[in-house]
Amino acid sequence: MPLGAMYSSVEADLIKVENLLKTAGEVDSQHVAKLLSYSLKGVGKRIRPALTLLCGQLYKYNLDSLLPMAASVELMHTATLVHDDAIDNSMVRRGRSTVNSIWGEEKAILLGDYLFAKAGDLCTDTGNLGVVKLFTQTLETISAGEIDQSFGAFNLDQTYDDYIRRISGKTASLFALATESGAILSKSPPEAVTSLRDYGFNMGIAFQIIDDILDYISTEEEMGKPIGSDLVQGTLTLPAMLLLQKYPDDNPVKRLFQNKDEADRPRDVARAIAMVRNSEIVQECYQVASDYSSRACSGLNILPDIPTRKALIELAMYVIRRRK
Amino acid sequence: MPLGAMYSSVEADLIKVENLLKTAGEVDSQHVAKLLSYSLKGVGKRIRPALTLLCGQLYKYNLDSLLPMAASVELMHTATLVHDDAIDNSMVRRGRSTVNSIWGEEKAILLGDYLFAKAGDLCTDTGNLGVVKLFTQTLETISAGEIDQSFGAFNLDQTYDDYIRRISGKTASLFALATESGAILSKSPPEAVTSLRDYGFNMGIAFQIIDDILDYISTEEEMGKPIGSDLVQGTLTLPAMLLLQKYPDDNPVKRLFQNKDEADRPRDVARAIAMVRNSEIVQECYQVASDYSSRACSGLNILPDIPTRKALIELAMYVIRRRK
Repeated sequence: MPLGAMYSSVEADLIKVENLLKTAGEVDSQHVAKLLSYSLKGVGKRIRPALTLLCGQLYKYNLDSLLPMAASVELMHTATLVHDDAIDNSMVRRGRSTVNSIWGEEKAILLGDYLFAKAGDLCTDTGNLGVVKLFTQTLETISAGEIDQSFGAFNLDQTYDDYIRRISGKTASLFALATESGAILSKSPPEAVTSLRDYGFNMGIAFQIIDDILDYISTEEEMGKPIGSDLVQGTLTLPAMLLLQKYPDDNPVKRLFQNKDEADRPRDVARAIAMVRNSEIVQECYQVASDYSSRACSGLNILPDIPTRKALIELAMYVIRRRK
Repeated sequence: MPLGAMYSSVEADLIKVENLLKTAGEVDSQHVAKLLSYSLKGVGKRIRPALTLLCGQLYKYNLDSLLPMAASVELMHTATLVHDDAIDNSMVRRGRSTVNSIWGEEKAILLGDYLFAKAGDLCTDTGNLGVVKLFTQTLETISAGEIDQSFGAFNLDQTYDDYIRRISGKTASLFALATESGAILSKSPPEAVTSLRDYGFNMGIAFQIIDDILDYISTEEEMGKPIGSDLVQGTLTLPAMLLLQKYPDDNPVKRLFQNKDEADRPRDVARAIAMVRNSEIVQECYQVASDYSSRACSGLNILPDIPTRKALIELAMYVIRRRK
């Protein structure tokens, strides 16, 4: 099933989210407007706002609060990408030049700050203080996850639990915000809120594991950004962890993380990618992601049996098979 | 009158704000805790939280909401400083090494993000959605002001109005948030909210003009950071603007902004500082700041005639005569 089919029940409202994002970019300062317009044009999959709307459909669908919330999660996501690219000095994302590559790191930092603020501003338009609190706490969790990742760069001494904790913070927490806020704003009963929060959280973990696999097995053309970038940044993801376990002695990841000579890096990165591709590691990672995707859906049976519930399950499966 | 005397009526509660900030630094991640503890230890004047508490004293003083709000404005201020230092590559602030100088720019960006989130989180503890909205919109204004400043770097073609607009965004808006939120949370009548907002806003402009003067006439020892940094960053402040007006032909600021050769910069910066110091420019800038300080106080007569009102007036005068 293509992504559009899963979105079909919220398709018209996703266009309203797009329009709201466009309006958010209309500001007095021409400099700010230029940066906003550019950063909001790089259309991603809009999976997070779609989740908010879908989770809002199961009980009392209230567009007045769901639209700003959906726009808010998308803006928070955009803000984190803008800062990530600035930090990693990334040149390309989704096939387009990054903000930092065009206007410099300074503008990217400030634009990210503006986007966080605008995301918070839209979140207050829900009129629900509890949801705003979730928003701010999610941003704390994301930033803390990123700080931990940054301190852990080029550190070989990390466990599987460290990895899951890290991606829970930097990725799953935002998926959980997207789903939980949709549930809360549509006045879902408490057990449905918990079920949808868990759905978003586990799906977010699955999503990130797939992202981490694609960084090894995809192509730059398909991804719209260079592959192997996690290794270059010194980020130990699941494929690299499994590679270290399987080949503890002569290992390109070990060499890469311990060797200070940057000239050797491209060779070690290429070697690690080739070894992952030619092993059962890819399959093992897919299995872990798939388990999280199943776990995501395991609590959905308490929800109303309407097509939206099926769409959520399809979406959890799509996350696993996606190629970009 | 020393700063402490103006704070006397809120002194005990400012300590509670300090304790709240300390609690905010207690987090699970040891990496995040380390960065937070360091960045919150660099005690400034705490003028913004003091303003929130003071403005909260004029009507129904409600500590339950004023404390988190005061802590929130201080954290937002800290977050902007952490990002500013990262952007400017500043090594020292308040006599201490900056976060970016110790842990690198990457950690500083992420810590700033965390601090913004925590500031928002504390703001939601006020239980007042309107104040949270003010918070997010203030952060938008600050970031937009910083973006405009960044695009205007090394641009000689800026007017006095551009300057006032810029410092309104990057500095006065946060002072206005500090005072207005205090007024709102203590259930001040609408005209008092407006008066206190205007007080904070105009005081913020005065505060920034003094900051910009001190960057020319102070010493590194007194300021706890290098002087002349605005010129080095290509930021055209009021003293430099007046210098350009008075000496349109042979002018060190002009040379500095137009000359790409970095080797000449220290000489031009030193020359500009000397020329500003040995002219009536300093006095003229003080006059502009003083006018804004008076304007700040001009609407306070509608407030209850209690010692706090006098403290606010003293504070507006202190802002002008401060040396750091």
